Amino acid sequence: MFCMMRILFLLISIHFYIISAFDSDPLQDYCIPHTPIHFLQKCITSHRDFKATGFASIPVSSNVFPGLNILGMSFVRADFDVDGINVPHYHPRATETAFVLEGRIYSGFIDTGYRLFAKVIEKGEVMVFPKGLIHFQMNIGDSPATIVGSFNSQNPGLVKVPSAVFGTSIKEELLMKAFGLDKKELAKLNKGLS
Amino acid sequence: MFCMMRILFLLISIHFYIISAFDSDPLQDYCIPHTPIHFLQKCITSHRDFKATGFASIPVSSNVFPGLNILGMSFVRADFDVDGINVPHYHPRATETAFVLEGRIYSGFIDTGYRLFAKVIEKGEVMVFPKGLIHFQMNIGDSPATIVGSFNSQNPGLVKVPSAVFGTSIKEELLMKAFGLDKKELAKLNKGLS
Amino acid sequence: MFCMMRILFLLISIHFYIISAFDSDPLQDYCIPHTPIHFLQKCITSHRDFKATGFASIPVSSNVFPGLNILGMSFVRADFDVDGINVPHYHPRATETAFVLEGRIYSGFIDTGYRLFAKVIEKGEVMVFPKGLIHFQMNIGDSPATIVGSFNSQNPGLVKVPSAVFGTSIKEELLMKAFGLDKKELAKLNKGLS
Amino acid sequence: MFCMMRILFLLISIHFYIISAFDSDPLQDYCIPHTPIHFLQKCITSHRDFKATGFASIPVSSNVFPGLNILGMSFVRADFDVDGINVPHYHPRATETAFVLEGRIYSGFIDTGYRLFAKVIEKGEVMVFPKGLIHFQMNIGDSPATIVGSFNSQNPGLVKVPSAVFGTSIKEELLMKAFGLDKKELAKLNKGLS
Amino acid sequence: MFCMMRILFLLISIHFYIISAFDSDPLQDYCIPHTPIHFLQKCITSHRDFKATGFASIPVSSNVFPGLNILGMSFVRADFDVDGINVPHYHPRATETAFVLEGRIYSGFIDTGYRLFAKVIEKGEVMVFPKGLIHFQMNIGDSPATIVGSFNSQNPGLVKVPSAVFGTSIKEELLMKAFGLDKKELAKLNKGLS
Amino acid sequence: MFCMMRILFLLISIHFYIISAFDSDPLQDYCIPHTPIHFLQKCITSHRDFKATGFASIPVSSNVFPGLNILGMSFVRADFDVDGINVPHYHPRATETAFVLEGRIYSGFIDTGYRLFAKVIEKGEVMVFPKGLIHFQMNIGDSPATIVGSFNSQNPGLVKVPSAVFGTSIKEELLMKAFGLDKKELAKLNKGLS
Repeated sequence: MFCMMRILFLLISIHFYIISAFDSDPLQDYCIPHTPIHFLQKCITSHRDFKATGFASIPVSSNVFPGLNILGMSFVRADFDVDGINVPHYHPRATETAFVLEGRIYSGFIDTGYRLFAKVIEKGEVMVFPKGLIHFQMNIGDSPATIVGSFNSQNPGLVKVPSAVFGTSIKEELLMKAFGLDKKELAKLNKGLS
Repeated sequence: MFCMMRILFLLISIHFYIISAFDSDPLQDYCIPHTPIHFLQKCITSHRDFKATGFASIPVSSNVFPGLNILGMSFVRADFDVDGINVPHYHPRATETAFVLEGRIYSGFIDTGYRLFAKVIEKGEVMVFPKGLIHFQMNIGDSPATIVGSFNSQNPGLVKVPSAVFGTSIKEELLMKAFGLDKKELAKLNKGLS
Repeated sequence: MFCMMRILFLLISIHFYIISAFDSDPLQDYCIPHTPIHFLQKCITSHRDFKATGFASIPVSSNVFPGLNILGMSFVRADFDVDGINVPHYHPRATETAFVLEGRIYSGFIDTGYRLFAKVIEKGEVMVFPKGLIHFQMNIGDSPATIVGSFNSQNPGLVKVPSAVFGTSIKEELLMKAFGLDKKELAKLNKGLS
Repeated sequence: MFCMMRILFLLISIHFYIISAFDSDPLQDYCIPHTPIHFLQKCITSHRDFKATGFASIPVSSNVFPGLNILGMSFVRADFDVDGINVPHYHPRATETAFVLEGRIYSGFIDTGYRLFAKVIEKGEVMVFPKGLIHFQMNIGDSPATIVGSFNSQNPGLVKVPSAVFGTSIKEELLMKAFGLDKKELAKLNKGLS
Repeated sequence: MFCMMRILFLLISIHFYIISAFDSDPLQDYCIPHTPIHFLQKCITSHRDFKATGFASIPVSSNVFPGLNILGMSFVRADFDVDGINVPHYHPRATETAFVLEGRIYSGFIDTGYRLFAKVIEKGEVMVFPKGLIHFQMNIGDSPATIVGSFNSQNPGLVKVPSAVFGTSIKEELLMKAFGLDKKELAKLNKGLS
Repeated sequence: MFCMMRILFLLISIHFYIISAFDSDPLQDYCIPHTPIHFLQKCITSHRDFKATGFASIPVSSNVFPGLNILGMSFVRADFDVDGINVPHYHPRATETAFVLEGRIYSGFIDTGYRLFAKVIEKGEVMVFPKGLIHFQMNIGDSPATIVGSFNSQNPGLVKVPSAVFGTSIKEELLMKAFGLDKKELAKLNKGLS
């Protein structure tokens, strides 16, 4: 069983001199900030201290693991409680391939033509979420589920749609009109998501 | 006054052989599909047949104007009626610079740290919306308003958040949990936005 | 009327750590040098202190506005007196889309096959100048004219051909032969353009 | 247990018009060749018909799954018998992140300074192989092992060093000198690896 | 002596399916249009049929040699008669490194700050011309000279400044004002360079 | 004759502020670290202190010549004694075009389909080695030979296959299995190549 995920990096210490701002063709084999630790082994245990949504995730980008710097990749572990959901979100800087380690997960994305592509994916299956498109997941099995996602950016970014739209004090009149909500309905959404 | 926007392209007819899939450094000066029209002049009048949201836009990407093909840019004209809104949306493939031609417009974006940057922008002002971040606009003046947006992609893409999330038949249970809605509230949103 | 152009940026202060050297896919939402100013509003009034050529421009690249850093875009305001000209020039690092705010402007570019594409563009029209190609403009109307240009680079660069070729002390013999000029003719050009 | 890996793609049929030659920023959400199959589900069972090296792999690039086209990612499943090895190889067009599904695997890479970074990685661990560097693996546990690798290219390419160098009829004199081999030793290597 | 330059390509015949529009990271080892010739050997003899400028060049881009397709490089051989010049020009899509095979050549470029960098380069020396900047050469030795230039684009493009500006029917009034020429002087330039 | 190769750079001193990590579209004309030397002329004499392989090379990347920084190119001079070889190697970050200055050289590369493309190239000929593919050379003439290689990266990287595989203490069991060697044969290879 995958009760934990250990992340391992084999790194050496060299002097820090850049944090690059782009994903592109690297000019060096790798580029790691200065650190006294030559070989870094990182163990991410599965806390599974699920929030209200029954979901917990551990993103591993170059901010967390400098060894990924300039290499154009990063990854994430996502755990779902029964009925747990990963709310509609997108990554502005990366395509994602999601590999199911455990469980049965309803998963999908919406393209710019507002077409929905959704399906139940199971252990050993992979689903692709194209760069910048809104996607989501829900554990519809009867036991906890786990996914490992890979990104083609060292810093894919994450925008959770509910929090971005309703939790950030956008002018009420605009949101009411945009979603067809009355003042009371919006207040409830804003309250729940900020 | 800007009662209309005419789009002009000076193109020649050469034989079609590629529609490229990427924004990058072009390998040619330009690349235009085969057409009998040597010089193309396009006039986009301001119809201003506003929808419920009091908003109308005319995107000019390489799909519409082949002359933009491989050049890595496109643009849009957006007209706002009084109180008209451009609903929260993002462009997965481009940064946008928006130039106000007429009017007073409440405008903003939300970054991946869920910080809101919003301000009223006026005639002659420019605002920048970083690539892939949710942004929105609302005409808060007492007369119609107009913006011209420029993109650094020939096909920036457009995801309107309300339509993408509520108009596309994502599993109800997931959306209810994600936004904290009950079944009836969700049904109203889905109905209004599909 | 557009007697002025105000440039607005909504920025927050974060610590400076890179000035990137490339236009590419950003790895962050934005990246702004350290500054005490949280919200920056810039107003560029139209000075219109035209030079001999009857032309004045205000380029707004990432050097001037750090908020554009890593976003891959910049812009320029260009004012033309009656008969004013923007001399043949090119931008080595960007395509430009030019939007006419006021006036009637003779405008064109030359491709690498030495074909000229020139036309009179008017208020509300847009013309595209492909990356790295020589282009020019002249106000042929009977009142001042204004253009707003957008670039798909945060630092497009500018090479004015007359100044680059004749104002920079290239060996006389080479220039005489290249342009078919005698010593006296070249001296006049060099004198006028350095 | 992971006795199989099923690959799932949710695709729709659109008309084929390009197979792009580059990994870069896509200009579209996705781009899939013409096919009558709207939703494609692919199941890759673990055959484990190991060769002499005790190793079998199933690469899933855009050649195999058109849905990956223009998205800049692909992946691979690799199975190791006890003592099975993945010979020294490299991917000329991608960085790889390798996730251990089962087993204990000796794994490493060599950088351009001829430094070896090698370690035993176990279930739930991830190791990164920078783009274009030679790497290798060996199952040193006492049961079969499995890895899932992700690449940041839709077509990473694969060069197995032993086959490339000794199995391709490079002039004998050159190889003898390059590796310090006599004629007989080289003949044995060439014979075993072609 | 280098009385000739033979260009050799080792190619195989595969089916044509794309001519890519971008320099970027290739997705394949190489990509060559369909041809019955498996191994292509091309011999470019030094014609040295110099024009008025005492200069002749043989550009070898992917248009001429399909084997360069998607590889992001091309090259050129340039021969100079005594006093021969390569007129001020630039390559919109590539940096150039120029290697002197024979002779003494006055060579330079102008940056966007209108600074001139010029020097006499000799046999065995290399000079770099940054992407998109105007540069030029003149044989100041007493015997013919030869340069081999390499580009980091499969199609660097070439804009000869005299021909682009004076040979293409740009409105006279604009050019007169831009260069400070009277009608007669311009007519002479236009005549000589068209 | 080319008994030496002088490398010339025309640079000016500006303040250092970045060492970029990527080959891409530069945002500036050039970018050179702080140095008191305004004009740098570098002379690389041909030492020809050949090693056992009868080969000596002088790579000129941006590490050595800061003037190449952000320009996306570099080059190398390679000298071969009679029978001298350049061992099988690859450049993970660049395509190479190799120009023969003197001599007759057996030269080739192997693609990812394990096809060998090899030929004898002579003075004035150019051969292309696609990015990331293993290639090699051997002087088969009866006098010393010289090649100048150009790369489309400011830091192409170099992996000599014999040294990378046999000189770096990879686990013996793995190498024995990968190459079909017994313990004694491997020991000899490791000893000779570390």
